Amino acid sequence: MNALALHTDKYQINMMYAHWANGTHRNRAVFDMYFRKPPFANGYAVFAGLERVVRYVQELRFTEEELDYLAGQEEGYSPDFLEVLRSLRFTGEIYSVPEGTIVFPGEPLMRIEAPILEAQLIETALLNFVNYQTLVATKAARIKHIAGEDGLLEFGTRRAQEADAAVWGARAAYLAGFHATSNLRAGMLFGIPTKGTHAHSWVQMHDSESEAFDRFAAALPDQVTLLVDTYDTLRSGVPNAIRTAKAMEARGKRMQAIRLDSGDLAYLSKRARAMLDEAGLSYVRIVASNDLDEHILFDLKAQGARIDTWGVGTKLITAKDDPALGGVYKLVAREQAGILKPVIKISANPEKVTTPGAKEVYRIINRQSGKAIADYIASVEETDMQEGKPLRLFDPIHPYLQQEVGEYEAIPLLQPVFQKGKLVYDLPGIEHARAFHREGLRQFWPEYLRRMNPEKYPVDLSPNLWQMRERLLQAHMR
Amino acid sequence: MNALALHTDKYQINMMYAHWANGTHRNRAVFDMYFRKPPFANGYAVFAGLERVVRYVQELRFTEEELDYLAGQEEGYSPDFLEVLRSLRFTGEIYSVPEGTIVFPGEPLMRIEAPILEAQLIETALLNFVNYQTLVATKAARIKHIAGEDGLLEFGTRRAQEADAAVWGARAAYLAGFHATSNLRAGMLFGIPTKGTHAHSWVQMHDSESEAFDRFAAALPDQVTLLVDTYDTLRSGVPNAIRTAKAMEARGKRMQAIRLDSGDLAYLSKRARAMLDEAGLSYVRIVASNDLDEHILFDLKAQGARIDTWGVGTKLITAKDDPALGGVYKLVAREQAGILKPVIKISANPEKVTTPGAKEVYRIINRQSGKAIADYIASVEETDMQEGKPLRLFDPIHPYLQQEVGEYEAIPLLQPVFQKGKLVYDLPGIEHARAFHREGLRQFWPEYLRRMNPEKYPVDLSPNLWQMRERLLQAHMR
Repeated sequence: MNALALHTDKYQINMMYAHWANGTHRNRAVFDMYFRKPPFANGYAVFAGLERVVRYVQELRFTEEELDYLAGQEEGYSPDFLEVLRSLRFTGEIYSVPEGTIVFPGEPLMRIEAPILEAQLIETALLNFVNYQTLVATKAARIKHIAGEDGLLEFGTRRAQEADAAVWGARAAYLAGFHATSNLRAGMLFGIPTKGTHAHSWVQMHDSESEAFDRFAAALPDQVTLLVDTYDTLRSGVPNAIRTAKAMEARGKRMQAIRLDSGDLAYLSKRARAMLDEAGLSYVRIVASNDLDEHILFDLKAQGARIDTWGVGTKLITAKDDPALGGVYKLVAREQAGILKPVIKISANPEKVTTPGAKEVYRIINRQSGKAIADYIASVEETDMQEGKPLRLFDPIHPYLQQEVGEYEAIPLLQPVFQKGKLVYDLPGIEHARAFHREGLRQFWPEYLRRMNPEKYPVDLSPNLWQMRERLLQAHMR
Repeated sequence: MNALALHTDKYQINMMYAHWANGTHRNRAVFDMYFRKPPFANGYAVFAGLERVVRYVQELRFTEEELDYLAGQEEGYSPDFLEVLRSLRFTGEIYSVPEGTIVFPGEPLMRIEAPILEAQLIETALLNFVNYQTLVATKAARIKHIAGEDGLLEFGTRRAQEADAAVWGARAAYLAGFHATSNLRAGMLFGIPTKGTHAHSWVQMHDSESEAFDRFAAALPDQVTLLVDTYDTLRSGVPNAIRTAKAMEARGKRMQAIRLDSGDLAYLSKRARAMLDEAGLSYVRIVASNDLDEHILFDLKAQGARIDTWGVGTKLITAKDDPALGGVYKLVAREQAGILKPVIKISANPEKVTTPGAKEVYRIINRQSGKAIADYIASVEETDMQEGKPLRLFDPIHPYLQQEVGEYEAIPLLQPVFQKGKLVYDLPGIEHARAFHREGLRQFWPEYLRRMNPEKYPVDLSPNLWQMRERLLQAHMR
């Protein structure tokens, strides 16, 4: 079940086979991975998925079971081709922005340079990993943006789209600022904090709510968060929790929190807060859950809800309002007579025309403000921006929108991850990636980060790149 | 990575621990799994996930790594408790409707009877598996309903929410009538058919589209489906495909299909059909892909699109318009003094009040029409409907809506799957489950199955069950 060489679309194998049959399978190719539209109408996305990609690429090989399976397919793949697969390892280059990077539509998040045989095989898996994790990290960042310093717990496993989504989604949420997950497997695999209270069934398994509360407090005296809505939040749950908390005080213990999981969270949290405070329990915090997302958080906060920690489930782990990031993987150069030549894909939809050639992405930071003013995409050969020469920034769709910048720093975003098939990148670990993400956000003016109607951040092409794209476009139209 | 004992929420372990600390962890409990609202405003759902559940339950045990992880948690679980976990196996009963069953809101899809320690542990995983697979099977059934006898291919892996979703989603789609998937791992794991053509990158890797087509046809002469929209569908792609097809004919081969992946699929498919027919290639079929779902299929068919096979990706594999099924797992009985006693959960929202007790679900079939007239939920002790006695069917929310039925057959839906922890159910295999699903649909009048505004199918409680629920409700309100 763990082997992932066949975590791919059959057309990849068919193209690999046809290349092999034609003797072109070792020809090198360059692919860009990028997305065209940020999810949730957000101003940006949070890149995630690289750790998963690295593990996958490192372990990539066909097992005997997989080769047997392919040998039985109706395509009738030649045994010699299967031998090529048997010894296949990734031998190419992968460049990637680090996990946690703030990224924008149209810019390469990863660049893959490899023999076409390898580059096709890994396309599907790379997109599958990066699309999902980037999606959830972006959703989590939106929620974090509204939650500020409040506690944020990821509670979505039961509604996640199967087991992998639960753990990688929990990790993506933590990367973007959540504080813990309920998923223990994610805790074990990634070393992220885990939290858990109890369910309604705990209360129902006892003769009374107060007995259930007392017994929970007796068993886990340092981890007591009580769910107060099994029967009636304000008439039964909160008063019983207060009694349990007072009994705990008599034993020198402090209840951590109560949890609200239904009803009007604005009203109930204010009333529960008042009841707890009147009982001298101002240290007992209030956790809320029940179909939360950034919009409901925003509204509850605007209503003065007294909620300290938010448990977020379904709408985060499935990215419910926009559950697929449309990341793509497009050929931008291919080997011809031993040289990598840029290629273009035309489309009746102008925004779908690709930008040819192997490219670097620079984040252009204004030296005075320390803030990002644009991302700038250039050929890998161009070096102007590394030398600090004045840059002409212009919109590739609407070239009349332009400006010159002088005093800037150009930070290259793509890092070498694999070179000649060897891992050359130190995976930073989740805590570092999380801090890197938090720092990265500070580079942006708040107008780009807001929840509603964010300002569009400029992603520009270098003049050279733009002209080359125009030339190829013209050539193809003739 | 494969161990799944920690594929659960931390609160399950905390409740298990608290039960153990209180000596109540071997007390038996009965849980129902059900959903309250069908996804996509559909009239029904298609149950899926049982094969995954069976494998999970059979393999359920804590590994040393998992126990070590738990030993390090801030809860400070006692070593004696971890010893209990070390020897934990599932020892209870699981009843389930078979995969492919047409199911409705409010009826138990699974019933779990086990020591509370085990019943809590498995809750999260069971919901995670059944929620996702039932969701995708239901979405696939909606698409199948519109596609009729057309070909249906599942193409969603790159947009699936991680790797598990890709394979289990592909299986759920096949269960509900899709013909193949592009995902090779799903093909290998489940024995379902796989299909694949080529991508734009295949064309771009060659000096011309016609060279690319000829070379693909040379490599895979019996599996030629050509993607015709890399440059210009009608001016370049289809004419080049026709040339390649004619050249294949000269070698005694037949092209299978062309694939359209962008643009106006209604117009392009009609023009392409005409061009192919004029060239004497009426046997070459037309495959279409590009953000399809049941609504777009319906519209394209209404416009007379000439599409033979539909490749469906993102909107199926993520269930994009409703990406989470809200399946729940609720305690309905618990052991008290050695006897299982029904329990209820109250809610300010009347539809969230649970139905107490261990229950069976019967599908009531009218003997004249052979069609289902209602599902009928009764206590496991009730036998009237097995003996064919007249039944009074009434709506549990609006009891005045009622009818008596005489000439009926009552088919029990829940099958024993595990008894005393032993698997007693023969998993039917995917082909049988698929046929069972297809047969099951025939039991329903089309009004319950239509895509838009389906008629609500009755799910009724037995009078005994309804009275018991009312009694418990009254008792709690006092």
